[in-house]
Amino acid sequence: MPMKLTILGSSSALPTSERYPSAHVLNVHERLYLIDCGEGTQMQLRKNKIRFAKINNIFISHIHGDHVFGLYGLLSTFNLMGRTLPINLHAPDNYLQMLSSHLTDFDIHLNFEINFTSLGGKDPLKIYEDKYLTVTSFPLQHRVPSFGFLFREKIPDRNIIKESIEKYKIPATRIPAIKKGADFTTETGELIRNELITIPGPEPLSYAYCSDTKYFKRLASFVRGVKLLYHEATFEDSLGDLAAKTGHSTSSGAAKCALAADAETLIIGHFSARHKDISVLEGQARKIFPRTIAAVDGTTYDVANINVH
Amino acid sequence: MPMKLTILGSSSALPTSERYPSAHVLNVHERLYLIDCGEGTQMQLRKNKIRFAKINNIFISHIHGDHVFGLYGLLSTFNLMGRTLPINLHAPDNYLQMLSSHLTDFDIHLNFEINFTSLGGKDPLKIYEDKYLTVTSFPLQHRVPSFGFLFREKIPDRNIIKESIEKYKIPATRIPAIKKGADFTTETGELIRNELITIPGPEPLSYAYCSDTKYFKRLASFVRGVKLLYHEATFEDSLGDLAAKTGHSTSSGAAKCALAADAETLIIGHFSARHKDISVLEGQARKIFPRTIAAVDGTTYDVANINVH
Repeated sequence: MPMKLTILGSSSALPTSERYPSAHVLNVHERLYLIDCGEGTQMQLRKNKIRFAKINNIFISHIHGDHVFGLYGLLSTFNLMGRTLPINLHAPDNYLQMLSSHLTDFDIHLNFEINFTSLGGKDPLKIYEDKYLTVTSFPLQHRVPSFGFLFREKIPDRNIIKESIEKYKIPATRIPAIKKGADFTTETGELIRNELITIPGPEPLSYAYCSDTKYFKRLASFVRGVKLLYHEATFEDSLGDLAAKTGHSTSSGAAKCALAADAETLIIGHFSARHKDISVLEGQARKIFPRTIAAVDGTTYDVANINVH
Repeated sequence: MPMKLTILGSSSALPTSERYPSAHVLNVHERLYLIDCGEGTQMQLRKNKIRFAKINNIFISHIHGDHVFGLYGLLSTFNLMGRTLPINLHAPDNYLQMLSSHLTDFDIHLNFEINFTSLGGKDPLKIYEDKYLTVTSFPLQHRVPSFGFLFREKIPDRNIIKESIEKYKIPATRIPAIKKGADFTTETGELIRNELITIPGPEPLSYAYCSDTKYFKRLASFVRGVKLLYHEATFEDSLGDLAAKTGHSTSSGAAKCALAADAETLIIGHFSARHKDISVLEGQARKIFPRTIAAVDGTTYDVANINVH
């Protein structure tokens, strides 16, 4: 599984006994990206046997407590576990100062650095890149500045056609370059074009996280063609007025976004504690976008292959 | 059960998948007193079906994250649930300002008041009293100012001897006063002394909370004769040097305090995540103080009747 998503928390501001506040972990080639960090995230990481040391990037969508109150405890725990590697923290503009002053109040001195990326702007912006993926932030529409994140796997290497290795006597040292798309020149000087000796690798995967936001049309353009879309659906459809007033989405709003974006699968979450039967929200979304599933805390989804039943 | 204790968290700074950071709930005649509020307290309250609305007093022993990081979420939840009743918050001196500035950073405006009691001093101090109990704070010895709490049930009403009601023709309106200890004068002017018409009520119960602290002799005098003593035992006995260095206690330190205080039962907790087998710590304590039990998250103890097996 080159990309898998574990949902640690799918409640909105009021957690329940079954749903913790927002936190997702995206695993891309065994590197972990933590997205939002509600209260209890570190306990949920432990329960799901996710290794703290593999987290090097944390993305915070906006500065509301249910998306960030777990960060103090998590950073303290990193410290107590002896972490020295820096953490890349991506969060709205004013957050680093708030965090620093809070840690100082608690006399917490981190033994590792925080490399801070400030989120902002009215357009999508590439905020991070490593060997396997790029991350783009994009603006949402909520009561405070709020940002979504699009994680795109880089185009995977092409697969070499085994028979061609013998046929053209390709030395092992040339194979990495050929997998990246290079042509090959044989011992006799013949140029063999890459398409003749490779086939395309697997489809690059992608995941987009949209929470918290009211429904707005342009959002779909930010996540166009995404493989797996997470979109908040705090309220069921009859509470559209409340959704608009509080800057949240309904089940149908989330589904409309998935449809317009031509996403492959939609996960809805960030459910209000008032909704006891989440299948109602799932049903509303499926009328518009059939490949919808409702988030369940502690579940891991293989982004390449999601089963919607 | 006039007094029962529920332990929501018994880990030290590093929570595990089974132990949350410090939080206790004391139920005294169905009024709830929350003692410390580590990360995840509100989720543990929900899991244990404890009613948020019955909590009117919160006691914070000291300003370390594992005792207080759950408070922001809990106060936000009170707000979202429509609370308007004030909360009495008892915490070390500088905490109210820290809390207020943090809530302001998060744009959280509470719809209820916080009545703040500042803890301090080198001697025990009565900090709270209501119909059923008094609460005394006392200084502990830790790396930062830290306080323990002694909850003492007020002397329960005496029980009236049923036969005496008929014998002396005691009207119902006089009974409450007689239960409080008043004598009774009959229709013919005869004075009946209280001891003749009542028997003593049940023994008043008490609970003391001591976390975080290194072992020190005077502590026992602050909790003398307590029915149930909770004392931290972060480390097992062979780690005495580490305990001294970090301002914590060993299993034997906790037991020595219980013995010197002539407590009836000792609960140990605040265990370091390094200790996988807590029965080792329990065994060490029992050698000195046999009526010791190791705290288990989510367990409720009837203070009048604790089973030690």
